[in-house]
Amino acid sequence: MANSRYEYVKRFELADELLPEVWIVIRIDGRGFTKFSQAHEFEKPNDVRALCLMNASAKAVVEDQPDCIFAYGVSDEYSFVLRKSTSLYQRRASKLVSVFVSYFASNFVHRWPDFFPDKNLQYLPAFDGRAVCYPTAAILRDYLAWRQVDCHINNQYNACYWALVKSGATPAEAQATIKGTQADFKNELLFKRFGINYSTLPAIFRKGTSIYRKEVQKAPPAKKLRISGRGEKNTTASSPNND
Amino acid sequence: MANSRYEYVKRFELADELLPEVWIVIRIDGRGFTKFSQAHEFEKPNDVRALCLMNASAKAVVEDQPDCIFAYGVSDEYSFVLRKSTSLYQRRASKLVSVFVSYFASNFVHRWPDFFPDKNLQYLPAFDGRAVCYPTAAILRDYLAWRQVDCHINNQYNACYWALVKSGATPAEAQATIKGTQADFKNELLFKRFGINYSTLPAIFRKGTSIYRKEVQKAPPAKKLRISGRGEKNTTASSPNND
Amino acid sequence: MANSRYEYVKRFELADELLPEVWIVIRIDGRGFTKFSQAHEFEKPNDVRALCLMNASAKAVVEDQPDCIFAYGVSDEYSFVLRKSTSLYQRRASKLVSVFVSYFASNFVHRWPDFFPDKNLQYLPAFDGRAVCYPTAAILRDYLAWRQVDCHINNQYNACYWALVKSGATPAEAQATIKGTQADFKNELLFKRFGINYSTLPAIFRKGTSIYRKEVQKAPPAKKLRISGRGEKNTTASSPNND
Amino acid sequence: MANSRYEYVKRFELADELLPEVWIVIRIDGRGFTKFSQAHEFEKPNDVRALCLMNASAKAVVEDQPDCIFAYGVSDEYSFVLRKSTSLYQRRASKLVSVFVSYFASNFVHRWPDFFPDKNLQYLPAFDGRAVCYPTAAILRDYLAWRQVDCHINNQYNACYWALVKSGATPAEAQATIKGTQADFKNELLFKRFGINYSTLPAIFRKGTSIYRKEVQKAPPAKKLRISGRGEKNTTASSPNND
Repeated sequence: MANSRYEYVKRFELADELLPEVWIVIRIDGRGFTKFSQAHEFEKPNDVRALCLMNASAKAVVEDQPDCIFAYGVSDEYSFVLRKSTSLYQRRASKLVSVFVSYFASNFVHRWPDFFPDKNLQYLPAFDGRAVCYPTAAILRDYLAWRQVDCHINNQYNACYWALVKSGATPAEAQATIKGTQADFKNELLFKRFGINYSTLPAIFRKGTSIYRKEVQKAPPAKKLRISGRGEKNTTASSPNND
Repeated sequence: MANSRYEYVKRFELADELLPEVWIVIRIDGRGFTKFSQAHEFEKPNDVRALCLMNASAKAVVEDQPDCIFAYGVSDEYSFVLRKSTSLYQRRASKLVSVFVSYFASNFVHRWPDFFPDKNLQYLPAFDGRAVCYPTAAILRDYLAWRQVDCHINNQYNACYWALVKSGATPAEAQATIKGTQADFKNELLFKRFGINYSTLPAIFRKGTSIYRKEVQKAPPAKKLRISGRGEKNTTASSPNND
Repeated sequence: MANSRYEYVKRFELADELLPEVWIVIRIDGRGFTKFSQAHEFEKPNDVRALCLMNASAKAVVEDQPDCIFAYGVSDEYSFVLRKSTSLYQRRASKLVSVFVSYFASNFVHRWPDFFPDKNLQYLPAFDGRAVCYPTAAILRDYLAWRQVDCHINNQYNACYWALVKSGATPAEAQATIKGTQADFKNELLFKRFGINYSTLPAIFRKGTSIYRKEVQKAPPAKKLRISGRGEKNTTASSPNND
Repeated sequence: MANSRYEYVKRFELADELLPEVWIVIRIDGRGFTKFSQAHEFEKPNDVRALCLMNASAKAVVEDQPDCIFAYGVSDEYSFVLRKSTSLYQRRASKLVSVFVSYFASNFVHRWPDFFPDKNLQYLPAFDGRAVCYPTAAILRDYLAWRQVDCHINNQYNACYWALVKSGATPAEAQATIKGTQADFKNELLFKRFGINYSTLPAIFRKGTSIYRKEVQKAPPAKKLRISGRGEKNTTASSPNND
C-alpha cells in the first residue's frame, strides 16, 4: 500500500493504559473560569445557573457512559468515577480523558442558552482533565471527601468575602478580615454582621452535587439518574443533608 | 487546615510530562462519526459544510494557542503541531489533550448553526484525542505525509464507492468492484464510467486542509491565520496545488 | 556555577513513580538461562545447587530491603513483594528495579563458588527485571498462584522430558510423547515407566521457594528469614506441604 | 490449561516503551558509595583501582551490547549511550535498565579481586539505574558535557579538600576554606600550598573515562573497544587531551 512508507510513525504512539482493577476518576476543571465567570457576570459567591449548567452537562456525560457510576461536582470542577473493572477504551488515559472532557464541553456550550437565556457566550470555554487511579473504596471515598471539604472551605470563604465586598469593603479589606480565620469566626461574621445562618444556605453551594444511578425494578436496560443538590430541573433533588 | 486529612489523595496524581524538545502532535478524532454523519445526513463522499465546520473549529484552537504552529485536518480528524520548545502546561499530556479537545468541541457545537443553518444537532459529538511526540522535523513531516496519504487513499476509495452507489449499485457490489484495486483503476473507473476527472476534484477533498500562521510585517502581536483547501470563508484560500 | 549551562538536560529525566498504596512486585528473570544452564552443566530437570544459589541471593535481597515482605522463586525467576505503603525510592520504578536486580546479581556472582565449588563461571549472568502493581491482596495471591502453577506445570513437563531423554529418547521423541498430554498422563508415565512418584519429588522442585519474615519476640530490630523448599543451608526448611 | 485461571494477572504488566528514534542513555550509579568507599578504604580523592574496576565492568557491558555505542564514566557513575534506532528489548525501559545494571554488577563483583587482590568485599554493592531519552545529538552532547563538567568540579573540589585534610585540617576547616570559591582560587591553593599543578593530574581523574568502538578494517564482526583515561590494562589509552 502506498501508505506503508509512512506507517512507521504509528510506533511513536506510546501506550498509556491505566492499571486494571482500580477506581478511575476523571476530573475536569474549567480553564480560567475566574475570568470566564466575570466575562459572563456570574452571581457571586455562587451562580446557581452556572452550577445547574455544570450539573446538566455532567449528567449527560454519566448517561453517555454506562461505566461511570458516580460523579461529584463543585464550582467549575467535576469528578467522574468509573467502575473498577471497566475496560472502556482499554483504560487508555488519553482516550478516557478526551472523550469525557469533549462531551462535557459539547454539552456545556449546547445547553448554555437553557440556563442563560438572556446572555450570549462571550467566548468559548475549555476544560482541562486528568485521569487518576485509586486502589480502594476507602481511598476513593477520601478523594471525594477531599473535594467536598474543599467545596465547604471555599464556599465559606467566598460567602464571607462577597458579603463584605457587597457591603462596601474593598477586596483587600475583605481579604484582610477573613484571612487565616477559623470556621467559627466566619460563621459568627456571617450571622452577626449579615444575618446569614451559614447552615441554611442551599446545600448545592455548601456540599456540591452528586450524580448517581438509581436501581429501578423491572426496567433492566434503563437506569434513571438522580442529581442531589437541587441543581437540575426535572430530576428529584436529593441534597445530602440540607437540614 | 481541615482539608489536610484528605490531602494525601493528591499523591495518586502521577506525572505525565512529555519529553522536552520534541514535536508534540495532538491528534483529535470524532467519536463514532460514521454514525454521526448519517444522523446528520452529511453529503457523500464529502460534506463541505462539515469540513468547513471542522476547519473553523481547528482555526479557533490554533488562534487560542500561540504555541500551536500548524494544523492538518482530514475528514473528522485534526492534528495540531506544537513547537518543539513549548512549555505549555508543563508539557503534561492530559492537560494538553484535554484543553485542545474540549475547546475544539466547544467550537464545533457553537458554530454548528453557521454551517448547518437548517439542521439541528440530533445529539452532541465527542472527540477523542492523544498526544504523540516526534523527535525530528523529518519524522514530523512523515507523520503529516502519513495523514495526507490516508486522506488521498480514503477519498479516492470513497469517490468510487459513492459514485457506484449513487448510480444504483448496492454497497456490497460497490465494495466488490473496488476492493483491492490500484489508484489507476479507480481513476479510470471514475473517468470512463462517471466522467469524473479525479485530479480536478476540490483540493479540500483530495488533500485535506492545512492551517498555518502567516508572518505579517509591522504587526507584532497579531498573526493572521490562513487555511488552505478553500474551506473557510473570509480567509485567503491556499490549497496545496489544486491545479 | 559553571555547570548550569548544561543542567537543562536534567529535565529529560521523566518521572516514573508507581501508584501509591498498591502492592509492588519486582520480578527478575535470568537472561538466556537455558544457554547459561548448559554452559555450566546444570543437572536436569532441576539443579539443586543452582536453585539454592538463587535462594541465597534472593534471601540477601530480602534482608537488604526491610520493605520487602515476601519473595517467591522458581527456576531462574524471583518475585519480590513490597509492602503496599512502601515509599522506598519514592516508588520510582527504575530505582526499585535497578537496585533489586543489581544487588541480586552481585550476590549470585559472589556466592557462586559456595554452591559450585568445582565449577568456574564461564561467563557472567545478567537478569532482567520489572515492577508490577497489584491493587489487592486477592490479586497479589493470584499472581503468586500464577507463578506457582507455572512452576508445577513446567516441572512436571521437565520431569517427563528428562526421564525420557535419559532413558534414550531423542529430544524430538520425548517432546512428541508428552506434548499436549494432561497431568494424569504425565504422572502415569513417570510412575509406570520410571518408577517415579511425582508427589514425592522434593517440594523445592514441585512448588518453588518462599521467603518470608518470621516475627520474633523480644528482638525488635532483627527479623529472621525463613526459606521454604529446603534450598538453603543453615535455615529451617519449611516446605509448603511436602508430606 | 490449568494456568489460565490466573493468567489475567499478566494484564497488570503495563507497557514502558521509550520513544523511537531518540538517543537512550542508561545511567547507573553506585548505591551509597560514599560508605562503600570508606568500608573498602578507597584512596582519596581518587582510587585508581576502583575507577579501573568501574571501567572494566563498563567495557564488559559495552562488549555485551552491540547497540551501545558509547559510554562515559566518572566516579561511581556510568552512562551508556544506545544508538537512536535501537530496538533492543523493544526499547522497554525496565528491561534495558535491569539488564545493563545487573550485568554491570555481575562484572563489578566478579572482577573485584583483579583490582583489589588484597582486599575482600566487606559487603556487596548495588547500583541504581535509569533510562533517559535525548532527542538530538546536540542535546546528547550537552548531557555528556554536563556529566564531564560535574566530574571536573567535583574532582577539583575533592583535590583541595583532601590535600587540606591530609595536611592536618579538620573536615570542617577544609570545607570552610574552599566552600563557594572559584576554580582559580582552587588551582592557586593546590599549586601554592601543595605544589600540585591541577592540569597535570591524571586525565582519568580530571576528565573521566570514555569507551567507544573503533572501526577496524577487514574484521567485520569484531569491533575493538578503546578506553580513554588510562584506566584499563591491555587497551590503548586515549585520554581526551591530557597534554
